[in-house]
Amino acid sequence: MTYTLRSALIPVKDSYTTVDVQIEDDRIAAIGASLPIVGTAINAENKLLLPGFVNGHTHSPQFWQRGLIPQLPLELWLADVFDTSPTQIEQAYLGALGTAINTLMSGGTCVMDHLYLIAGHELESVAAAVRAYKEIGIRAFIAPLIQDLPFVGGYPEGLKTLPHKPFHQSTTEILALIEAIVAQFHEPDAGIQIAVGPTGFHRCSDALFEGCRDLSDRHNLCRHSHLLETKAQKMLAQERYGGSGVKHLQQLGFLDHRTSLAHSIWLEDSDIAILAETKSTVVHNAPSNLRLGSGIAPVLKYLQAGVNVTFGCDGAASNDGQDLLEAIKLGSLLHNVTDLDYKHWITPHKAVEMAAIGGFTGVNLADQVGSLTVGKQADLVLYDLKNLSLLPRTDPVKLLVLGRPNGVVDSVWVRGQRVVAGGTLQTVNANDFAQTAFNSQTASKPHYQTIHTVEAHYRRVMGLPECGDLVAE
Amino acid sequence: MTYTLRSALIPVKDSYTTVDVQIEDDRIAAIGASLPIVGTAINAENKLLLPGFVNGHTHSPQFWQRGLIPQLPLELWLADVFDTSPTQIEQAYLGALGTAINTLMSGGTCVMDHLYLIAGHELESVAAAVRAYKEIGIRAFIAPLIQDLPFVGGYPEGLKTLPHKPFHQSTTEILALIEAIVAQFHEPDAGIQIAVGPTGFHRCSDALFEGCRDLSDRHNLCRHSHLLETKAQKMLAQERYGGSGVKHLQQLGFLDHRTSLAHSIWLEDSDIAILAETKSTVVHNAPSNLRLGSGIAPVLKYLQAGVNVTFGCDGAASNDGQDLLEAIKLGSLLHNVTDLDYKHWITPHKAVEMAAIGGFTGVNLADQVGSLTVGKQADLVLYDLKNLSLLPRTDPVKLLVLGRPNGVVDSVWVRGQRVVAGGTLQTVNANDFAQTAFNSQTASKPHYQTIHTVEAHYRRVMGLPECGDLVAE
Repeated sequence: MTYTLRSALIPVKDSYTTVDVQIEDDRIAAIGASLPIVGTAINAENKLLLPGFVNGHTHSPQFWQRGLIPQLPLELWLADVFDTSPTQIEQAYLGALGTAINTLMSGGTCVMDHLYLIAGHELESVAAAVRAYKEIGIRAFIAPLIQDLPFVGGYPEGLKTLPHKPFHQSTTEILALIEAIVAQFHEPDAGIQIAVGPTGFHRCSDALFEGCRDLSDRHNLCRHSHLLETKAQKMLAQERYGGSGVKHLQQLGFLDHRTSLAHSIWLEDSDIAILAETKSTVVHNAPSNLRLGSGIAPVLKYLQAGVNVTFGCDGAASNDGQDLLEAIKLGSLLHNVTDLDYKHWITPHKAVEMAAIGGFTGVNLADQVGSLTVGKQADLVLYDLKNLSLLPRTDPVKLLVLGRPNGVVDSVWVRGQRVVAGGTLQTVNANDFAQTAFNSQTASKPHYQTIHTVEAHYRRVMGLPECGDLVAE
Repeated sequence: MTYTLRSALIPVKDSYTTVDVQIEDDRIAAIGASLPIVGTAINAENKLLLPGFVNGHTHSPQFWQRGLIPQLPLELWLADVFDTSPTQIEQAYLGALGTAINTLMSGGTCVMDHLYLIAGHELESVAAAVRAYKEIGIRAFIAPLIQDLPFVGGYPEGLKTLPHKPFHQSTTEILALIEAIVAQFHEPDAGIQIAVGPTGFHRCSDALFEGCRDLSDRHNLCRHSHLLETKAQKMLAQERYGGSGVKHLQQLGFLDHRTSLAHSIWLEDSDIAILAETKSTVVHNAPSNLRLGSGIAPVLKYLQAGVNVTFGCDGAASNDGQDLLEAIKLGSLLHNVTDLDYKHWITPHKAVEMAAIGGFTGVNLADQVGSLTVGKQADLVLYDLKNLSLLPRTDPVKLLVLGRPNGVVDSVWVRGQRVVAGGTLQTVNANDFAQTAFNSQTASKPHYQTIHTVEAHYRRVMGLPECGDLVAE
């Protein structure tokens, strides 16, 4: 399809200008004043045009768990999440659809789905997510979440003192599974890529990281992992590697320009230098990090060290909101309290860059998409500047990032396809989706089965006082 | 008017139940199962019913400044705010209307407006706000913002080293003005109250605080002030009082159960004990505190010490969002990173209590409104549980507080009057308001006039490195 956007407002250095934009097939064909109309004319007057953002880290099946899990730190929260994870393929499909809807309606055109796989139905899990993403028309990276150490491996002293069984799949089996997933679903030209996604060093062996590295090299896949999300993981790195997990990951060859690392909260300055040197990307998930009490990532230090930083929503079990604009707002404002010198603070214009070109840098696509550049793929979003939440007419980018936009996304193009028009999804009926979600059986409440086996241990290793009254709602 | 709400979901201890609710005149007349229908029947099935929340601190004229001011700390930000404040009475009226719309559409039924007065038009400023609040039908406390020290009094070493003129009104004149405002506009029975609002010790003399205290005692007015919002204010307290500003305010007799204190970030433990002892309320404005880099208020300590804490949006120049649900979410989640022990974290159910009964406690109305209690005034909000942002059906209060609700307010009653129905304001046309805001002349960009006189001083006293390139966009 071909489109000509008339009179869109775009940010330029310290100001704004009004331009026309032509989209031909999947590309931005022209940007300029008074372009001839080709294809469908779109009145973009009083609308802000920005490149699409990347939702750099999420877990789509957690759609079913939003509003479900009590206020708990990651290590205990995760026990509840595992106990209540969806087990139906249809839920995997709908979870991906819900995640894509939220992403598109908050400025995102691309999602990195660190996808939980339903045990015994791994290929079908990926197939369900691929089906949803193709149907709705969002650009997607699917990193099947894998691990080869038992659950209690994620706790300091866990493997030493908590009872555990070996992980139910071998490292070799897991890597063979990913190879099969790549063969079946990796379709860069269709906007769907498979990435390797070892969950993190806390539950993955060196052999798994090395196998993922090799798969990535062989098929040019992105690499995605959690990194040092909590203080407990930092303690675990000390215990397991006698130092930083980051150095260890570098030595395993896992860190390169295709690697994006979710959270990255508990790093030392020397680790930051490694991220910069390897050109790894940090995906900052501020709402989730607050919800789980994980900490405040040293994002201003990352930026000063030249590390690429972008934003993610994280899964809905730890960010019950799933709004990318909220993740961007919080992910930029939060750091003002970490540095008295306001010259270092992230401006709204910088935040938008981090979300767009920063996001696509993190998935190794910055040369193809992520900015308003002729010849790049057309991942574009128009925001309605007559919406009350973007008024009065001061500075649209400031209002978008610092405000609390409600229903401001007017149009979205992904790879040249218009998937949102006039504020309405064109590819999927959002009202039908909401009705389906409403009709679906409520997720079971956490039954606190796993958590009861680990909570006393967790409190002890974290130096928290003993507590007879363990976790409750 | 009389209403019967059928089958509303309400939270009860650890669970939910479905009830009918009768509203007669301005009161909750009955709550129970299968009540007879009196008056207008409201189908509240699949809707959550909560008491209205209080927007415990804002500055309504800043509606015109949202999206305007760059990323700056309070002391420099304020210079820009003063330079760009609205000067037209119509702007004061519309600013109050906009603030009320945002509050009502995000669960609030009451606003504490720490109102900037247009110099030379002080009474008209208050009249404009009163007119807006009465017209839209929100409950309002208006605390005209007053000060009697010059602007540079707010900087450490400011009065010693920065050039200044005396404040243009005397303390006596200011107090006489407030007395006149009380005589003309204080109408508790109409839902409009005047409160005394010295801006804070940083720009107010002891005599002004004492005069406000006396006015409050004489007319039973609420007391409202900023308190220790920034590190600079803490340094100033040390300089001026040789210690805590809190102890000093207590000695002046300003702190009592009618006193609400915005921000309250830089308090010592001994100050916290004073707040508890005097039954003062802390109004927590988390989005603003992040935007201005002011710091993280020790809210978990307040709660543990028995201090009443509620939430506010703060003015739109420092919280460009103005959504009360966002202020509640961020104001509760933010503290998880300040205490490793999750047993201390604020649960969503607790947050809702803080926003409702906590808010009305802060304005000395807790015996009359703020909970679902027969006989109390009907400040009630119905939330639509079929809205996608409150799905799937896990836990409505968790979704409301931890999620990112969009357009979920179905109905609002204030003092028994239904001001929102079916998601639409009944008293004011919100679309017309948006069009008016769109048509209004854009606020002038900050011209950085005042800031240039103080920035170098600010950087010096705060220990920031000298910086040739002073503030820019």
